[in-house]
Amino acid sequence: MIIDCHGHYTTVPGAQQEFRDAQLAALADPALPAPSPATISDDAIRESVEGNQLRILRERGGDLMLFSPRASSMGHHVTDPATARAWAETSNDLVARVVGLFPQHFAAVCQLPQIPGGALDDAVAELRRCVDAGFVGCNLNPDPSGGFWTSPPLTDPYWYPLYEAMVELDVPAMVHVSGSCNPSFHALGAHYLNADTSAFMQFVEGELFTRFPALRVVIPHGGGAVPYHWGRYRGLAIRMGRPDPGTLLSNVFFDTCVYHQPGIDLLARVVPAENILFASEMLGAVRGADPETGVAWDDTKAYVDRLELTAEQRQKIFEGNARRVYPRLDAQLRAAGR
Amino acid sequence: MIIDCHGHYTTVPGAQQEFRDAQLAALADPALPAPSPATISDDAIRESVEGNQLRILRERGGDLMLFSPRASSMGHHVTDPATARAWAETSNDLVARVVGLFPQHFAAVCQLPQIPGGALDDAVAELRRCVDAGFVGCNLNPDPSGGFWTSPPLTDPYWYPLYEAMVELDVPAMVHVSGSCNPSFHALGAHYLNADTSAFMQFVEGELFTRFPALRVVIPHGGGAVPYHWGRYRGLAIRMGRPDPGTLLSNVFFDTCVYHQPGIDLLARVVPAENILFASEMLGAVRGADPETGVAWDDTKAYVDRLELTAEQRQKIFEGNARRVYPRLDAQLRAAGR
Repeated sequence: MIIDCHGHYTTVPGAQQEFRDAQLAALADPALPAPSPATISDDAIRESVEGNQLRILRERGGDLMLFSPRASSMGHHVTDPATARAWAETSNDLVARVVGLFPQHFAAVCQLPQIPGGALDDAVAELRRCVDAGFVGCNLNPDPSGGFWTSPPLTDPYWYPLYEAMVELDVPAMVHVSGSCNPSFHALGAHYLNADTSAFMQFVEGELFTRFPALRVVIPHGGGAVPYHWGRYRGLAIRMGRPDPGTLLSNVFFDTCVYHQPGIDLLARVVPAENILFASEMLGAVRGADPETGVAWDDTKAYVDRLELTAEQRQKIFEGNARRVYPRLDAQLRAAGR
Repeated sequence: MIIDCHGHYTTVPGAQQEFRDAQLAALADPALPAPSPATISDDAIRESVEGNQLRILRERGGDLMLFSPRASSMGHHVTDPATARAWAETSNDLVARVVGLFPQHFAAVCQLPQIPGGALDDAVAELRRCVDAGFVGCNLNPDPSGGFWTSPPLTDPYWYPLYEAMVELDVPAMVHVSGSCNPSFHALGAHYLNADTSAFMQFVEGELFTRFPALRVVIPHGGGAVPYHWGRYRGLAIRMGRPDPGTLLSNVFFDTCVYHQPGIDLLARVVPAENILFASEMLGAVRGADPETGVAWDDTKAYVDRLELTAEQRQKIFEGNARRVYPRLDAQLRAAGR
């Protein structure tokens, strides 16, 4: 079985964006009423994924995708709590409907209603609501400001209420920023990767997993710059009197969203197979195919297939690690005899 | 000949830090006088490098190091222009004295007196002063704010006065941030690498080298996350209707400050030998040695030596590219019969 742990509902029907636009218009003009959630038919939802994520998943031999709202649209920089709540709830509800329509092929991961500097009560409440509805994980934004990095590091007690809920519910988080409001950072080409790199270094510096030994986080995009600079992290950790970064691998996992063979080769050479989760990020950052090879950029299975792996390593990367890191997914699959 | 293009005066005599402390004290308390530059003897300067950078350079078989003030101490976030000028001038003057004492082994690269949002007149003036004094390049900070990224991207006309001077003087810049004032970013483990990654993506997005075809920049720390994600950049460029990132390689170069063998192997696999400049960043980010191998983290020559390179490629990485990217260095070496 092949599980893709990182897919986004980037093809959501346009009515959902119209709802978002109306939300933002109402924030800008208090005379406007708060909009009602979009009305979207099952057919529209079916159509939005059948020819896109679902088709491509199947064509490439995948079985199941962990599916979450479009990351770049989470928009956590918008500071109104009610707006954040309604946007997260409606976005998550649409993901839940995709899963309801295609339960064989999708499992749900939720967006959290974060805002810069805001308490995490709403995020915890939405996580609980979603897990009750069958979601198996969440996306956690370390920088709700969208490129200005005004929140404390992920090791700060600010985040503990969310971690306590995650541990209690036994769900992991993918550390994933949203769009960039900072012109210095292209969202897909800089902000995402910087966030991955920064989050890992925060874990090197802090004591988070001593306090939360059962907490699990997935760092997407192959861990940003981390595997490429693994020696740097090992050396820095020694210099800082911190444990070797390898000790973080009980709690920190990397996905395979690295879009060329040399990158995937490095990832597999540096990071143990136990800590790599297959993922494509599709339909996401990089659509289209390498004109030199004809291989789609985000067809990461093509790269992983070329690794020299034992059958056991291959099973872990494609399936076993995802079932271990997302135990609620494993439970759902087992209940379905899979 | 082996040229290390990235070394910092991290061992500067303590009197220089006392001068900096007095500068900052005078800024905090206007009743205090602006301090006079530190008085540092030639012996103190000799001693500060003989047992450190110079010893290690020689022990590892290196011949010459491009030497600049300590990057993490540039302190461009301090917004007073006069303070920035005096700090850059005194820091550069000390580097020039190192070069004067050991002209066989060091060549000078300058710090610029940048401040967040400030005009670049002072930076241009200091660059001209330094080049007149024999400096061969400069370090350009894309984020003078120190982790808040308040400056425009490097492709913005804001930076053009500096680029015009660089082109006129025929000196390259290493894109190098200073310390981080943002607790989300560890300077050495996140901020440096994020800056490298962000700068490259800015070049992918912008038109800089069409306007300045002779401009040359070195992205340190192996290019941050860039070579690891080369496929991502290629795919993004196509999606954005931009030229292939490979076209940037007429102007953009990467150093070898990647502290483990798999990272260097990836760098050499992805980036043409013509665009890789040997560098160690010593004494810099990561002191000490890998306890598993006994190899010093920043002994990047040990990693490069293990690459399968032709003699021509090896010559380019260790010497030829540096002489090409830093033509004033080449001219100095030729004048000395080297």
